[in-house]
Order: sequence, then structure tokens, then C-alpha cells
Amino acid sequence: MAKQQPAEQRTWDKRRQAKRERLTGAGRYVDGKVVKHDSLVRVLETVIRPGDKVALEGDNQKQADFLSRSLAQCDPGTLHDLHMLIGSVSRSEHLDLFEEGIASKLDLAYAGPQSVRIAQLVGDGTVSIGAIHTYVELYARMVVDLLPDVALLCASAADEDGNLYTGANTEDTPTIAEAAAFHDGIVLVQADQIVGADDLPRVDVPGDWVDLVVEADRPFYIEPLFTRDPQGITELQILQAMLALRGIYERHQVVSLNHGVGFSTAAIELILPTYGEKLGLKGRICRNWTLNPHPTLIPAVESGWVETVHSFGGESGMNEYVAARPDVYFDGRDGSLRSNRVLCQLAGQYAIDMFVGSTLQMDGEGNSSTVTEGRLSGFGGAPNMGHDPHGRRHSTPAWLDLHYGEGAAMRGRKLVVQIVETFQSSGTPTFVESLDAIEVAKNSGMPLPPVMIYGDDISHVVTEEGVAYLYKADSLEDRKAALAAIAGVTPLGRGADPKELERLRRDGLVALPADLKVDTALANRSLLAARSIGDLVAWSGGLYEPPAKFRNW
Amino acid sequence: MAKQQPAEQRTWDKRRQAKRERLTGAGRYVDGKVVKHDSLVRVLETVIRPGDKVALEGDNQKQADFLSRSLAQCDPGTLHDLHMLIGSVSRSEHLDLFEEGIASKLDLAYAGPQSVRIAQLVGDGTVSIGAIHTYVELYARMVVDLLPDVALLCASAADEDGNLYTGANTEDTPTIAEAAAFHDGIVLVQADQIVGADDLPRVDVPGDWVDLVVEADRPFYIEPLFTRDPQGITELQILQAMLALRGIYERHQVVSLNHGVGFSTAAIELILPTYGEKLGLKGRICRNWTLNPHPTLIPAVESGWVETVHSFGGESGMNEYVAARPDVYFDGRDGSLRSNRVLCQLAGQYAIDMFVGSTLQMDGEGNSSTVTEGRLSGFGGAPNMGHDPHGRRHSTPAWLDLHYGEGAAMRGRKLVVQIVETFQSSGTPTFVESLDAIEVAKNSGMPLPPVMIYGDDISHVVTEEGVAYLYKADSLEDRKAALAAIAGVTPLGRGADPKELERLRRDGLVALPADLKVDTALANRSLLAARSIGDLVAWSGGLYEPPAKFRNW
Repeated sequence: MAKQQPAEQRTWDKRRQAKRERLTGAGRYVDGKVVKHDSLVRVLETVIRPGDKVALEGDNQKQADFLSRSLAQCDPGTLHDLHMLIGSVSRSEHLDLFEEGIASKLDLAYAGPQSVRIAQLVGDGTVSIGAIHTYVELYARMVVDLLPDVALLCASAADEDGNLYTGANTEDTPTIAEAAAFHDGIVLVQADQIVGADDLPRVDVPGDWVDLVVEADRPFYIEPLFTRDPQGITELQILQAMLALRGIYERHQVVSLNHGVGFSTAAIELILPTYGEKLGLKGRICRNWTLNPHPTLIPAVESGWVETVHSFGGESGMNEYVAARPDVYFDGRDGSLRSNRVLCQLAGQYAIDMFVGSTLQMDGEGNSSTVTEGRLSGFGGAPNMGHDPHGRRHSTPAWLDLHYGEGAAMRGRKLVVQIVETFQSSGTPTFVESLDAIEVAKNSGMPLPPVMIYGDDISHVVTEEGVAYLYKADSLEDRKAALAAIAGVTPLGRGADPKELERLRRDGLVALPADLKVDTALANRSLLAARSIGDLVAWSGGLYEPPAKFRNW
Repeated sequence: MAKQQPAEQRTWDKRRQAKRERLTGAGRYVDGKVVKHDSLVRVLETVIRPGDKVALEGDNQKQADFLSRSLAQCDPGTLHDLHMLIGSVSRSEHLDLFEEGIASKLDLAYAGPQSVRIAQLVGDGTVSIGAIHTYVELYARMVVDLLPDVALLCASAADEDGNLYTGANTEDTPTIAEAAAFHDGIVLVQADQIVGADDLPRVDVPGDWVDLVVEADRPFYIEPLFTRDPQGITELQILQAMLALRGIYERHQVVSLNHGVGFSTAAIELILPTYGEKLGLKGRICRNWTLNPHPTLIPAVESGWVETVHSFGGESGMNEYVAARPDVYFDGRDGSLRSNRVLCQLAGQYAIDMFVGSTLQMDGEGNSSTVTEGRLSGFGGAPNMGHDPHGRRHSTPAWLDLHYGEGAAMRGRKLVVQIVETFQSSGTPTFVESLDAIEVAKNSGMPLPPVMIYGDDISHVVTEEGVAYLYKADSLEDRKAALAAIAGVTPLGRGADPKELERLRRDGLVALPADLKVDTALANRSLLAARSIGDLVAWSGGLYEPPAKFRNW
């Protein structure tokens, strides 16, 4: 042995000791693992210490809002300088924590409804941003260099032993629980109800991983993020859907896919049983999905288009429908959906042919971002889905159809599609000279502009003008020309050279509706298999129960 | 509603009905969830049907070998044409299944010890290969288009309710269990022992997800894959380790990383407390690891280099040591390691600065493969680790140091490093004109050559001659020239132009030992913090218990 030396006199279980101390301190507010309802604030002040990294469950849909509201009531004299790890910053109290001095640093993935306020708080120095991640990237760091001292999570029900039932909205709970539970972090869970031992419909997270449970004052907050009312779908979007279906789905024989949330992708889901059926595509495309239970997919499911749907999370109102279609959705033995963001993201990354999303801004090179001036909205899962995973090794026809490279270096490519209208509904052009994200990065001291999807990661862009086959562009110049050709009357599009368009069409870099044999006259709402939420309910045989805000009957 | 129609008269729970039938059929061999030991073959013949997709747990280390041996004893008249999904094809009976006509199709990720026989069986048509995947890619498909009808899994202990304790080797069990359990597949688990309800040290998989358990005839098979005896480390490998440490780890300030298994990376682990210490790098680099518990990391852990290690799986003999270092490793409340391949791969993909691996063959463009003539060994996890994940959005100094692109498109890059000796120990050159994988693909009818890591995904290559900084190469020509410059006296290296070498050094594409101020005279075994397995045991204070085959005292 080169350098024989006695094992250093070092403590190797500091975290375990700290955890034991904290839980002992909370003992008087706790009965077994169950926190007395009115003692939650004191328990939080006891099990959390200043400077701690605290993972607070804010997922894409569900929110541990009893815990976040209670944390915001803690005494900033006792609890301060917390480093919050929050997937989705969606609740006002998430930011109250910073204004009140309880927290100072934030690592996040997404900030939809709070995107304007968060930008202000970053601007005035109240919030110090670690980084904007994707969801799974943030969870990945929880086992590497952002180790939670405390995890505050969310379940539908818990039993006295801490076993958790998450129902349809499992989402991220097992992953965050695992990161904390197996590195001596404290796991504290709010549950809509606490039941006797072994009285849960099923177990989604073993009680073994959970230190404390508390019954919430009201059911956890949930956002119907993936519900698009067919009434809001425009004829422009139906045209885009037709172009995408012929120019991409049919052309490349796309069997497995993910749709982002948006009216254009909802339109595609709703023309599968009509336009898609007429094209003879049923059974040939769109069979296996990684997707939350979109209500607008119901007609395609009922018409026999869809073999399977694996989900990141649930969707309000869809539980009964999903429970009645177990061959399609992933249900537990209790009959309800089991979702799992990490597993579904893995599937979305390595097992599907195509991702289709949309964006608020795209520059001339195809870079896109939802971070625009005054809004710091984050990415959610789009960058994970929206790139070609170089670690994939199995082939499918669609993937091989986009092959590149020679000899040993030849490989296929995932389809990464952006569907955008040339103008936003506000009248501002989608295609811009320069992304707002560049300015935002400068002003917030970010090392890089917060780009959602990079132009060189995109294979296709669809507008109402046509389809750009960016994967065929051999140069940045060609990529820019193909984008300009479908950018309509935006400044970017007006600069396009009409002669250039002919070359691009000839070389297959751009296809116009006529090239795709899309009859634009068909692009009207009668092509939608459902034209309202009520239609979706009817398709579902009454199983879909839309949230109140989508009911107008 | 465009096309009002009644919900089709369709059965939506075929899988659930089939599962119920099968389990009912097995009822007489079962007591609750516990399969009578001597009835296992009959149970397998009852719950599996011809043509089924059967996920058989073969992980990197652990093997459900009681189940695989029993499956091989089934009657091919009853059970045939199974489509096997096996992560690691490591046991002879995995292939017996095909020779006996029980199985016909195979999707896999890795086939180490069976790589020669599998190539023969593919050649003669006995095995039809679906695809060679990475581990996580195969699991991803289990929720998309390779849905297991039955999952045959492996645990250290189970209770009568089916709760599982996996001990240090959790690996892939929860992921495969989830894919099957939540889509009405049958989950059958072998356990080293079956205990009374709630008598497990901890719960790794809830009993809720498990249909049947059976006590194994002997403890499950486990391979000490990540143990490298320091006695086998050569001076050439120590030189490589020094070059890597100065030319990559120190230069780019690599804080978080993964090491593949190999003597070169073992050498790096063993010179951290000696050479690394002398360079003043302790605390500045190599703090956070995604890594199985490598015995050769013990000296670095004991010397205070390592903050955390998150693991894909366990390692034989390391359990006591890992249990005594809970601040470093991820342990459960029972005190033993919790590993998880999917979570650790996620971390390896999105949360670390660098992957370092090695290969058997590399071509002039840097493409590498472990699939060589007559061997079909697969990839395991290397392609997941060995590429730059375009879905990453947070920055670290190392990642930013390799930035590329302009304006909105500027981003960092993961370090993907290959360490290879110019010649294999057999005397065959590592650098070859053309990968054997190309010929293998042709002969086996694969759509693409089975390349492990692509040249354009690699950022650095290290040989005993120097370091090639491939990420700086703007063209394929430069990449090839940089590789040739460090390819020594292989045919590829002999073709290199000496004048070109000067240009490459000047431009920073290649660094020789002198450029990195590496004193080659120091490259001898006295630089290793441990020079034998016995030394490692001493460093561990007697906690490391090496498997018998590594004991020579």
C-alpha cells in the first residue's frame, strides 16, 4: 500500500444524526408519523433549518399547497435563507417565501402563472436563481449536487404508516421522495386524507420512505393544464394539423409520439378519426403515445386509433374515463391511472419517434423560447422531448427515415417538430430577429440565454404556410431560408426570395399545401371529430367529467 | 359534434381479464401470493402464454436465475415463441430458452459472458434479435411498444404480501415492476427468503405491485463487475491516468462525473489521493459521482475527496463499507445501499460534467464499439452516458468550458472521454481502419452498425501518447488528424504527419505529456494509493469484504 494511513477520524453520518435530532425535536407535535393538523407550522420550523435545501412539490399539475401555504407562515427569524427546489413555481406563496425572507435561492423548471412576478423578483434581487432546468434535470441533480435536506410532498391519501396513494397524479412524488429518503433527508407529505394502516386503494410510495404525514386542510391544488376546448380551435390550426398529418405523420410513418399542449396538436388529435381515417392511416400511425390523458384524444381512442398512452401526470376530469380504458392507459389494480414523470420522460426520450410542440417566439435559425420580455416561464419538459437523444440505439422506420452520417457513423434521428402560427393571437409575429431570451439572460446575469429548443435540434417546422424540413438542411443558410419560406408576412418571411422558394420546394426542404396534396378548402371546423367539450363528453359515453370552467351547458 | 357515434362495442380490459384468468389458473399452486417452491415450473407454464412478451430480470449485476433456470425447464410444447426482454443476457439458460424452442425473439441491452454464443445463435437463426438497446432505452420501450405480459424479477427478500426488499442491488427491479404492474402484466418475483408480513428491513417495491413471490433455491446470482484489482494496473495506465487528470479533470475543473469500469479509470481513482493531492486538486474536482461502489474509490473516499456517490447498482463485498459511509452513499433507513439504475442514468445524463469510458475498438473518426467479430456484446449504459444530452439547461464551469455556438444558440457541452491504450493486451491495435461492427451488422441483418459511442459525441480521447481535444475540431479532417496524432505505432498512428502534429499542438487539439507538464518518470505503481485488494481492505478499515476470487491471502 502506497500510503498506509489510519482511516481519518471523521464523522460519516452527519446527515443521519441531523435528521434524528430534527425528528426528535418534532416529536411532541406528532403521533407516530402523523403530524397534528394545527402544529404543521411548528413542525416545519423544527424539521427545517436555515440554509437548508428544501424540495417543495410543485409538479406540472399538482401542488403541495397546504405545505407551501404553511411554510409561508413560518417565522423568518427562525427559518431563513432556504434554498428552494421547486419543479413548477405555480403558487403565489412560492414567491411569498422569498419576499418574506424565508427563502433566498431558487432552482426551478417552470413558472407558468408566476412568470411575470418571478421576473420582477429576480430583477430586484429578492430571488437568486440557481438555474432553470427541465423537470427531470432538476430531479437528477437531487442525487448529485442539489441534495434535499427536506422534501415537502403531496398525495391523495396516506395511511398511518406513511404509505402513500397518489391516485392518477403520481407525477414526481416517488422520485423526489427517493432522492430525499435515501440520503437522510426528511420526507413530509400532505395527504387529502389519512386512513388506517393498509386501508389505501393501492401503494404508490412505500411508507418506509416517508417520515411524516399531515392531513391537508383541503384537497391539493390541481391545474387542468392539458385540457383544450375544441371550440377554441381555429381554421388556421386545422390547416396546420392537415399539413402536419400529411407532411410529417404520414410521410415518415410515425407510430409513437408525444404531443405538447396546444390548440394545434389538439386539432391533430381531433382530425385523426376524420381526415386521418379518410387517408387510410388508422393502425399505421399514432399508435403508441407518451401523453397526459388529453380530453381531445378521446375520439381517437374511441375510434380504435390508440393502442397505448403512458402518462407524465393525470388530467382533471379524465379519471373515470382512464379507469374504464385499462388496455390503453396505465392503471393500477385499484383501477386508477398511475402516472410517472421520470418514466414517461424516459419513454419520451428513448422510445418514441416524434415530439411535437409549439412556442411563443422563434428566431430565424429556428431557436425558440417561451421566455419573453418580462416573463421567466421556464421549460418544463420540452427540452427533454425536443432533442434527438444520441443515446438511442434501436431503430424504427420513422427514425431511420431521417438517417444521416456515413458508414459506422450512420444513424437515425428523432423527429422534433414545432408547429407555430406566423403571428400570435395578439398580432405580434412569432418569427423574430432575435429572441427576447437573449436580453433576459443579460439582465438576469444568466450564463446563457434560456432557449427552450435549439434550431439545430428541430427536424420540422409547420406554419399555416407549409412545412420546413429542417433536417434536410446541410447548412445554416439553408435552414434559415427554409424557415423564412414558411414565415408568411412576418418581417422574416417578407425577406424571403421567391426564386429561392422554388429551389427549396424542388430539393424537398419546403412543402406547400399543394405539394402535400392538402385541400385547403377542407380546413374548417367540420373536420373536427369533436367541436366542443360537450362533444368530448358524448364521445366518452359520459365518462369524461370536465372541470367547471370548461362547462358551458 | 362532427361525427356523432355510439362508443364502439369494444372490450377495453383484455389484459386485465387475461391476467385474472392466468392467476386463477395458478391458484392451486399458490398460497396467497406465495408460490409453492416445487410448483414453480407449473406456475410459469400457467401464467405465461405462447407468444408472450416476458421481461426477465438480468441486470448489470444481479440475475433472477432461479426463475430463468425454471423457465428453461418448461415444456416447449406448452410454452413457445416467447419474446424475451432481458437487460443483461448473462446466463447460459437465457440462451437455452432459444435452443429449446421456448423463446424465439430477443430484445436486449448487454450480453457480456454470452456474447460469443449469442452471435452464433443469431447467425444460425435460433435467436431473432429485435434490437440491441441501452438498459434504460429497453425499459423505456416497456411502457411504449414492448409491453411485458409477464415480468420475472429478483429480490433479496419478500414478505407474504409481496413487499420487496432488494438490499444494495435494487438496480432495475422497481422500473420493470412498474411497467408490468400498471398495465395488467403479471409480476412474479424470486426472493432469497420470504418473511412474515412487515418483517422486511425496508420496502423497495410495494407488495401492491407484485402478484407472486417464490423463495429461490439459492441466493440470486451476482457478478462483481465493478471490482478491479489494483495489482492489474500497468504503468501505461498510470501514465494515462496522469494525462487525464491534468489534461481534462484539472483543465476543465470537472466536479461531477461517472467512470466506466476499467483499469485506466481505476488508476485515476487511485491517484487522486497521491498525484491529485500534490496538484492541490482536492475539494476542487471529483466531488460528486454517479458510480457503483467501486472498491478502487475507497482511498479517495477515506481521504475526503468524495462528497457523494449515487449508484446504478451495488457491488459485491462493498455493502458493509457503503453502510458505514451514509453521508457519501445513498443508504436506506435500514442502513444498506439503495441503488436505482434509471435514476442514476438520469443523473449521469443530465446532472454530471463528464463521462469517462473505454472501448475495444475505435476507428479513425473516433467511432467505437465493443461489438467485435464473433462477439455481440451490446452496450449496457455507455451510450446514455457517452453523449452530450441536448436537453440539459443548467450550467457548470466544466460544461461551459466546452461551449459552442453563437448568440441564442450558444450552449455548453458534456465531457465525453474515451481512454484507450493504442494496443489491446492481446497485441491487436485498438485503432482500426473500420469497425468490426460494420461487418457484424451486415451479417446479422441489422439496419445500422452497432456503434457504442459515435466519434462526434466524444469530446476527448486519451492514449498513453497524449490527449486529443476532439471538441475543438471544426472538421472531420481535424478530428481524424487529432486522433491519428495520439494513435502511437498503430497503422492509423503511423500514417500521421509529424508536421501536422505541431499544428495540432499549437492549436490545442492535441497535448503531449510535456505539454501537460506530466512527468512521465512518476508513472509507476508507487503512485497508486492502493496497490492490491489487500490495500483496499486496509484503507476501508476492514469494512470491504472482497469476493473470494479477489482474495489471494
